[in-house]
Amino acid sequence: MTAPKPSSLAMVPFVSVANMMKLVHHIGIEPMLRDLGDYIEADFKRWALFDKTPRVASHSRDGVIELMPTSDGEVYGFKYVNGHPKNTRAGLQTVTAFGLLATVDTGYPVLLSEMTVLTAMRTAATSAMVARHLAPKGARTMAMIGNGAQSEFQALAMKAICGIDRLRLYDNDPAATAKAMRNLRGMGLELTACTSAEDAILGADVITTCTADKQYATILTDNMVGSGVHINAIGGDCPGKTELHRDILARSSVFVEYTPQTRIEGEIQQMNPDFPVTEMWQVISGAAPGRTSARQITLFDGVGFAIEDFSALRYVRDRVARSGHYEMLDMIADPDDPRDLFGMVQRAAGPAVAA
Amino acid sequence: MTAPKPSSLAMVPFVSVANMMKLVHHIGIEPMLRDLGDYIEADFKRWALFDKTPRVASHSRDGVIELMPTSDGEVYGFKYVNGHPKNTRAGLQTVTAFGLLATVDTGYPVLLSEMTVLTAMRTAATSAMVARHLAPKGARTMAMIGNGAQSEFQALAMKAICGIDRLRLYDNDPAATAKAMRNLRGMGLELTACTSAEDAILGADVITTCTADKQYATILTDNMVGSGVHINAIGGDCPGKTELHRDILARSSVFVEYTPQTRIEGEIQQMNPDFPVTEMWQVISGAAPGRTSARQITLFDGVGFAIEDFSALRYVRDRVARSGHYEMLDMIADPDDPRDLFGMVQRAAGPAVAA
Repeated sequence: MTAPKPSSLAMVPFVSVANMMKLVHHIGIEPMLRDLGDYIEADFKRWALFDKTPRVASHSRDGVIELMPTSDGEVYGFKYVNGHPKNTRAGLQTVTAFGLLATVDTGYPVLLSEMTVLTAMRTAATSAMVARHLAPKGARTMAMIGNGAQSEFQALAMKAICGIDRLRLYDNDPAATAKAMRNLRGMGLELTACTSAEDAILGADVITTCTADKQYATILTDNMVGSGVHINAIGGDCPGKTELHRDILARSSVFVEYTPQTRIEGEIQQMNPDFPVTEMWQVISGAAPGRTSARQITLFDGVGFAIEDFSALRYVRDRVARSGHYEMLDMIADPDDPRDLFGMVQRAAGPAVAA
Repeated sequence: MTAPKPSSLAMVPFVSVANMMKLVHHIGIEPMLRDLGDYIEADFKRWALFDKTPRVASHSRDGVIELMPTSDGEVYGFKYVNGHPKNTRAGLQTVTAFGLLATVDTGYPVLLSEMTVLTAMRTAATSAMVARHLAPKGARTMAMIGNGAQSEFQALAMKAICGIDRLRLYDNDPAATAKAMRNLRGMGLELTACTSAEDAILGADVITTCTADKQYATILTDNMVGSGVHINAIGGDCPGKTELHRDILARSSVFVEYTPQTRIEGEIQQMNPDFPVTEMWQVISGAAPGRTSARQITLFDGVGFAIEDFSALRYVRDRVARSGHYEMLDMIADPDDPRDLFGMVQRAAGPAVAA
């Protein structure tokens, strides 16, 4: 008797980095960003259904490792993600991630996926979906401050979802700006490299800040920001890391994903615990107003929330099967008799032991 | 220009169920249980070093999905595990699991492993390592109440680590007992099938309870348990699930893994919040006494703690490389320039787009 093959229940579809990139090109980057924005918006609309818990963070000197679980009662998902700003010095990614979906009623995993690429996609799709609700009407110009790994995704999502077609780029490292300019060439965006943050925000309807230092920084000061803009602040995403001067927050209408998490991790960690904010699901479901005047500064204090990862994994699960861009992993022990795990292990030894 | 191959940094060693079983047989079940007991004991000795947090549980009508993270400051680990008692009716496992180790200073994963088989091994190794400290001297006979998926592992660990060589088995389903008897035949244990729990504990030095119902049950009542025994109670491992009558707890010296978690999940959820318990790391490090008399009833209220999974994953990482029983997964996006994630995605489209 030879060791039996694992049953189909033991197998979990796995989307590797290579397959995720194939899936992105199979669908197209901009269509996929639009689809992701729609999935995230749909899940924000059914916000009350979800198990919400702030992420479980393990902080160390050089960074943080986080687990972000959530569930809609039928499907459970979580993401593993790290944030290590110093990694780039060693040629490593600042952020890497993977995620999993499982069926709530059995606990069996149904999808394992890389999420480094997918997180960049969902973060950009969230920013742009939010900007579709909050940016001034007819917005066409975005300042992109911080031209690192997230920047091109942010730019393309704002183009695909909000109609942004002019991009003003600035990074304190000109090589980063040159890289982003090169990557975005020929994609339907009018690109301008700027020499300062002040320069970048000239005439911008939307200002995206996405820098990587793990420290209190002031990328934008109050006198730089004129009325009527929408600020998409996504770089401040852990305790001790912010990008905006508190005076900007004080005169903006601030929108967040999930207040308890954002008070710890977002720009509003600089403000009092009762500083007023609006959760985006309220705007999306019509329970609270978004932008109410042309002169208002709206500010999305985005830190990334588990439901966005859930939406993104749900989208990948829905789309990957037909594409074929996955492999099957033998990840779940599934003996013929579920009480006979030991027998399954014994039989795996082959004929000599099973005889 | 064709899509580049992922760099070695992008690859994570993965131990599938099939490879875990090969590793078990490569090392030998009993030697591996002994080794795991030693790794777990070593980590209990350096208890203060670890980040300890109760597991993050997502409860639903039919079960629970949990994430169990921990870190020793250099290595981070977590386990995904479900508990769905009704799964067996659909031919599924009650418990399935997988786990991950990562490097704290970069956040990069270094091992992904199945943990359904490994959890059964580490749970048994923990029980037996604890019994080595608490069981009466010269213990040779164990009652095994509940003959499901964990039972054979428990029996072999008690044999390998504590010298148990007589096993009295009982399950309310005789087919489960017959299965365990069949699996354990010829392994150096004198086996007796019993017709009741009362019968099983006759003459037993160690009593292991490991049943699966998600409800308050009374597998053992007070008048059944004589003086001097060690009770290894591992089936009560979530809120609302216990196996022992509270009167047994009241006259036992109770030992736990991590008090805050056990008060929620263990047998002691039946007792007042100030019911006295001793954490096993205190016994192992010499900070607190274990068994102090021959007539004392010692009781290990085992619920399974993240550090045990960490130890088990650490062991697999140390042993699997030489064995060759793993494969490499393309799980981490690792562009040549870490800020150029988008460029990596673009280049994956191949010559038509990159041209």
